[in-house]
Amino acid sequence: MEVVQVLHMNGGVGDSSYANNSLVQRKVILITKPILEEAITDLYSSSFPAKLAIADLGCSSGPNTLLVASEVIKIVNNICKKLGNQSPPEYQVLLNDLTGNDFNTIFRSLPSFQEKLKTQMAPAASCFFTGVPGSFYGRLFLSESLHFVHSSYSLQWLSQVPEGLESNRGNIYMASTSPESVLKAYYQQFEKDFSLFLKCRSEELVTGGRMVLTFLGRKSEDPSSKECCYIWELMAMALNDMGLIEEEKMDSFNIPQYTPSPFEIKSQVLKEGSFAVDRLEVSHVNWNAYNNNGFNGVADHAILKDSGGGYNVAQCMRAVAEPLLVSHFGEAIIDEVFDRYREIITDRMSKENTEFVNVTVSLKKIG
Amino acid sequence: MEVVQVLHMNGGVGDSSYANNSLVQRKVILITKPILEEAITDLYSSSFPAKLAIADLGCSSGPNTLLVASEVIKIVNNICKKLGNQSPPEYQVLLNDLTGNDFNTIFRSLPSFQEKLKTQMAPAASCFFTGVPGSFYGRLFLSESLHFVHSSYSLQWLSQVPEGLESNRGNIYMASTSPESVLKAYYQQFEKDFSLFLKCRSEELVTGGRMVLTFLGRKSEDPSSKECCYIWELMAMALNDMGLIEEEKMDSFNIPQYTPSPFEIKSQVLKEGSFAVDRLEVSHVNWNAYNNNGFNGVADHAILKDSGGGYNVAQCMRAVAEPLLVSHFGEAIIDEVFDRYREIITDRMSKENTEFVNVTVSLKKIG
Repeated sequence: MEVVQVLHMNGGVGDSSYANNSLVQRKVILITKPILEEAITDLYSSSFPAKLAIADLGCSSGPNTLLVASEVIKIVNNICKKLGNQSPPEYQVLLNDLTGNDFNTIFRSLPSFQEKLKTQMAPAASCFFTGVPGSFYGRLFLSESLHFVHSSYSLQWLSQVPEGLESNRGNIYMASTSPESVLKAYYQQFEKDFSLFLKCRSEELVTGGRMVLTFLGRKSEDPSSKECCYIWELMAMALNDMGLIEEEKMDSFNIPQYTPSPFEIKSQVLKEGSFAVDRLEVSHVNWNAYNNNGFNGVADHAILKDSGGGYNVAQCMRAVAEPLLVSHFGEAIIDEVFDRYREIITDRMSKENTEFVNVTVSLKKIG
Repeated sequence: MEVVQVLHMNGGVGDSSYANNSLVQRKVILITKPILEEAITDLYSSSFPAKLAIADLGCSSGPNTLLVASEVIKIVNNICKKLGNQSPPEYQVLLNDLTGNDFNTIFRSLPSFQEKLKTQMAPAASCFFTGVPGSFYGRLFLSESLHFVHSSYSLQWLSQVPEGLESNRGNIYMASTSPESVLKAYYQQFEKDFSLFLKCRSEELVTGGRMVLTFLGRKSEDPSSKECCYIWELMAMALNDMGLIEEEKMDSFNIPQYTPSPFEIKSQVLKEGSFAVDRLEVSHVNWNAYNNNGFNGVADHAILKDSGGGYNVAQCMRAVAEPLLVSHFGEAIIDEVFDRYREIITDRMSKENTEFVNVTVSLKKIG
């Protein structure tokens, strides 16, 4: 399986689309917004670029895709107002994701988005939007061309399934029953990928440029900790329960993801050497993003098919993982796998407090 | 009909797709290549940008989309070699088309294209590709951010159907039977659109930056001349022959296109004032791009369903005009319209020498 060719969020706007099942990811963006604000404010305390280039890496396709860009634009416009109505910069928004991402849907939503943005912006400003397809584990942009890089819930995805996972029997991710060698193989892949990511971005950012990166992660130093592995363990359970899948097929499937701890992220940044760590924060979001009805105007998008939220969580995971599963197991079993997954999740959510852990790091490119 | 929302070449890679029916457009790009070469060589005679930004406006989706960019890159790399193996610039390729264009298909073809480009390039160079959705009759790029702009067979499309065409009865474009007011309305729309295009590009290009623009055009000063209007007159004939279409429906349909003469193009450039005209050339291409079997390695893509080429020409026009026709007349009549159109074209091609006229202008941004 070539991850860069297979991995993408479900496209379009249907029931299983990422566009309709990405409320968790939206919540995470909103939870981490103060860190974004601080980084932008800090960027503007030392420079005032006439053209501001903002990249969102792993932008996906849906209501979240343009959320970060519009937040950044509003923050900068407010700074301009505070600085005695200084005219705002020209904005260049660079939306990146893998080549399998549904860019057509993003592009078709741009005219109405830009109209709306215009009415919200005073002073008026020019915003230019571009799509940049490709893996962020490689160069994507011209040298020293970016001022601000954002990425949320994308960097936990690895560039490939680590090698040497043959002994990870019955699991599809790191689990409490995974041998030490499996945990090590996963960590080494993370180390390799994230340091390459940092190197590429350091070439693309101007000195003083900022990055705010949010990982699906964990607090514990144990990579097989339940806080990050449970959601995949339940999916392994659903797959194993099917009874139809050959053992060999099951054993050769592993999720190309690593959910790092704050310490692991910080170590890699210091080791790579191009960035200073400004902030490093942990936050939480419930598996069921719909569990808070009062949540800031997005509850109206909810598809509340069951009160426990198992359906929503299974759909969210389906929007994210379906292409990977289809590529390995084929199309035929998918509906049943996610039916079983939903049942398992519903059961667990009724008994336990189930949360994702987010690790956000705010970085500044040094000289 | 909102042209910016409706106009796009047929997407995908099926029988009626633009990707499989754009050999005429490919030939035009290759015919005008010497002008491209001259413009790039001239650009490099006075400057040597370390980062070279190239925009292709109206890039569509298919084998032509990346053709111009790869030609420009090869030309620049050769210049670098001649200058004593100077290291090539970083290339930024900006692919623009309307938001309805099939960018997903372009982006999915990029990894293999980039692999191929790498093997052809010595010295090696970094190329970054981005998609820029939107109308070129408005700003698309940051101020003074481009070095070279190319556009082929796109600028004859107007931003809207001109107003005041009510008297253009029985026609769908300018025709010998069109009243003077119709010809004037078409020309005024062209004037307005092209001068706006020039103004926007002059803001986006660096001083000394170059543009090479090829229009589907005409030699004659008569805008209803057969050389540019005949292909649409035959389509009007196919529509009228249907017998099913209400007169009102037919009369309210007009193609948002203007095929200018070299003189008209030059006048607008001089009037707008930001560019100097370096070259202005006319060339020709047969309606049936497959009529020359020896043509440079592309004959193998040919779908030779009839020896006269009527099928190919009708398919080419279908790939270009189908979305416009569907938006006005609905889906149901399309197959029959193009069957009739093919028959009419086949008949005319057997009796006449049928050619498109191309007008290419090479421009340099002045101070």
